[in-house]
Amino acid sequence: MIYMDNAATTYPKPKAVADAIYHQILYMPGNAGRGTHPAALSAGNLLQETREALAKLFNISQSERIAFTMNITQALNVALLGYLKPGDHVISTDMEHNALARPLELLRKTGVQWSRISAGHGFDLDQLRRTIRPNTRMVCMLHASNVTGDIFPITEIGAICQEYDVRFLVDTAQSAGFVDIDVQRDHIDLLAFTGHKGLLGPQGVGGLYLRPGLILQPVITGGTGSFSESLEQPWFMPDLLESGTMNLPGIAGLKAALEFLRQTGKENLLQQERKHFQQLWEGLKEIPGVVLYGSGNVEQMTPVISFTIGQTNSLEIADYLEEKSHIFCRAGLHCAGLAHTAIGTFQTGTCRLSPGYFTRSEEIERVIQTVEQAAQKFK
Amino acid sequence: MIYMDNAATTYPKPKAVADAIYHQILYMPGNAGRGTHPAALSAGNLLQETREALAKLFNISQSERIAFTMNITQALNVALLGYLKPGDHVISTDMEHNALARPLELLRKTGVQWSRISAGHGFDLDQLRRTIRPNTRMVCMLHASNVTGDIFPITEIGAICQEYDVRFLVDTAQSAGFVDIDVQRDHIDLLAFTGHKGLLGPQGVGGLYLRPGLILQPVITGGTGSFSESLEQPWFMPDLLESGTMNLPGIAGLKAALEFLRQTGKENLLQQERKHFQQLWEGLKEIPGVVLYGSGNVEQMTPVISFTIGQTNSLEIADYLEEKSHIFCRAGLHCAGLAHTAIGTFQTGTCRLSPGYFTRSEEIERVIQTVEQAAQKFK
Repeated sequence: MIYMDNAATTYPKPKAVADAIYHQILYMPGNAGRGTHPAALSAGNLLQETREALAKLFNISQSERIAFTMNITQALNVALLGYLKPGDHVISTDMEHNALARPLELLRKTGVQWSRISAGHGFDLDQLRRTIRPNTRMVCMLHASNVTGDIFPITEIGAICQEYDVRFLVDTAQSAGFVDIDVQRDHIDLLAFTGHKGLLGPQGVGGLYLRPGLILQPVITGGTGSFSESLEQPWFMPDLLESGTMNLPGIAGLKAALEFLRQTGKENLLQQERKHFQQLWEGLKEIPGVVLYGSGNVEQMTPVISFTIGQTNSLEIADYLEEKSHIFCRAGLHCAGLAHTAIGTFQTGTCRLSPGYFTRSEEIERVIQTVEQAAQKFK
Repeated sequence: MIYMDNAATTYPKPKAVADAIYHQILYMPGNAGRGTHPAALSAGNLLQETREALAKLFNISQSERIAFTMNITQALNVALLGYLKPGDHVISTDMEHNALARPLELLRKTGVQWSRISAGHGFDLDQLRRTIRPNTRMVCMLHASNVTGDIFPITEIGAICQEYDVRFLVDTAQSAGFVDIDVQRDHIDLLAFTGHKGLLGPQGVGGLYLRPGLILQPVITGGTGSFSESLEQPWFMPDLLESGTMNLPGIAGLKAALEFLRQTGKENLLQQERKHFQQLWEGLKEIPGVVLYGSGNVEQMTPVISFTIGQTNSLEIADYLEEKSHIFCRAGLHCAGLAHTAIGTFQTGTCRLSPGYFTRSEEIERVIQTVEQAAQKFK
């Protein structure tokens, strides 16, 4: 197998992730915030330490402002549904994943106004300025496209949001772990993250950071282990957004993954990622008949490359790559119909290749050769 | 350590649970419903097989009517928020956990009418009949109390719901795995479950069953890997209620736990549980000054025993048990202020002892002795 589907979920995971989860299941009884015995307290510590590692990664000053969710989709829903009200105006790009677009569409039907900035071929900061209205309450957008790999200029966008006093929600599904994110420098008010992509953790853990002072109407309420006597959800973080039992094994795995990232070092990760990207991009762009999407500028892309071959359905190409060289990639619309409309690939979808930190150079070589053969076959 | 906090989360878990998760993390790449390569397909199969095992457990005829969530709290929220509308009337008991009570309180403020049946000392079926109104759309309640261990007569309640054409939502947090549940016999329209208690799985997985034909307004929407071209959430199960990446490692663990339960057999589990309950109840009820809650009828209780000693704060008693004999239990209000009001322990809380399948008889003996000493100390 040549695993080229790291944008769906990274693989392999560091062995320390599996070890940490194994240890949590077998040797850590107790449920965080439920009980005062040592096991319950150490489950609480696990949550706290993981929050602190995330806070360090994103330069968050108060780690308790991070709440865990099952995935980034939940985090985005909680942010959007908890903040926007009928009559509000919200701005996204036209490259959004359905994780953001579907809840926005639902809100649109309740009277939230939704504008989309064209971002299929670069993000226009002036268009953003022109789109802001007096009732604009939020700019929400993905940091990097899961279709093209393009990274959007969130530092500049965050500055504009601050200038106009508009909240800034960033979907870091495809960027966290790959791109440097600093909620203070980038003026991010709400940051949604997932554990199982660039952070190299397990599926089942994501979360939402809320800037200090910001409060949301909670979407999910329930037992928090705090103020049990009250039928009201506590209004402090993280309890406001953490109801019921947390995914303790998953969080133990994420903590181990964050430690792996820290030890490996941002620079090493970035270097590896850019090396893969360049090798793959340079190889593919030479193949006649293959059309690549995204800017191609290595400094403004994550290692995600989408391509098409004429009008061939991308699913057919993916099947070919798999049959021929056991390459696992993802074809179709990638839960992002909007983005494919924006880049003009709605009919065929694209074939998406996403190498990961552990990908080897020979594997990329083999992928390039196989795409070459596919281009011959489908030309 | 003597672990008496199985009602918060069971411990230990079968080793097969840890093994299955370890294997999933290290050797199962791919994300369910995201991609057509073998790894993505086998992740899809994992979900499907786990749904089928759950369907068998609860006698559910169509396994795709089960959606996974992070925990049972989410499942209950999705059911309540997705079904009830302003002007509707809903009935619960007065023994509810905050997982159900807090979202109901939120709904109450939007105009949903909420009545509570007294159930602190037995469930009165006639009171239920008298409480149903023309606009009653749902009876939602816990199957067994996390405070007293009392099991409520859901078969009879389900029959009344059917008679009056009212939907029946059951919170099985404390019963699944301990008590036989049959959605067809019990006329359950919506069943919420958690994986990490009686089912012996990991924290981080719960779910909701929706009777065929029943549709909810989804609370969380997003990418489902299906109909990516549409901004609308798909209306079929399980996609309707499953947005974003599922907790694949957790689900692999739950599947292994369900297999452990199947192999052990309902009868063995029940026998073990009743043996523990009786030994503990018989021992504790003889201790002067100790007040026990719940019916004491072994056939109508899960192995959860709450007690108080005079007006002593239950947290003080729990601390004593831990210091004296390293007993881990849970004191306080157990995220269920309503229930403690119902049984008259709102001021002190109760000390809750919950043995599990793997508890040994000597451990229970030691617990009884230590409670005896506590009764002497705090009398």
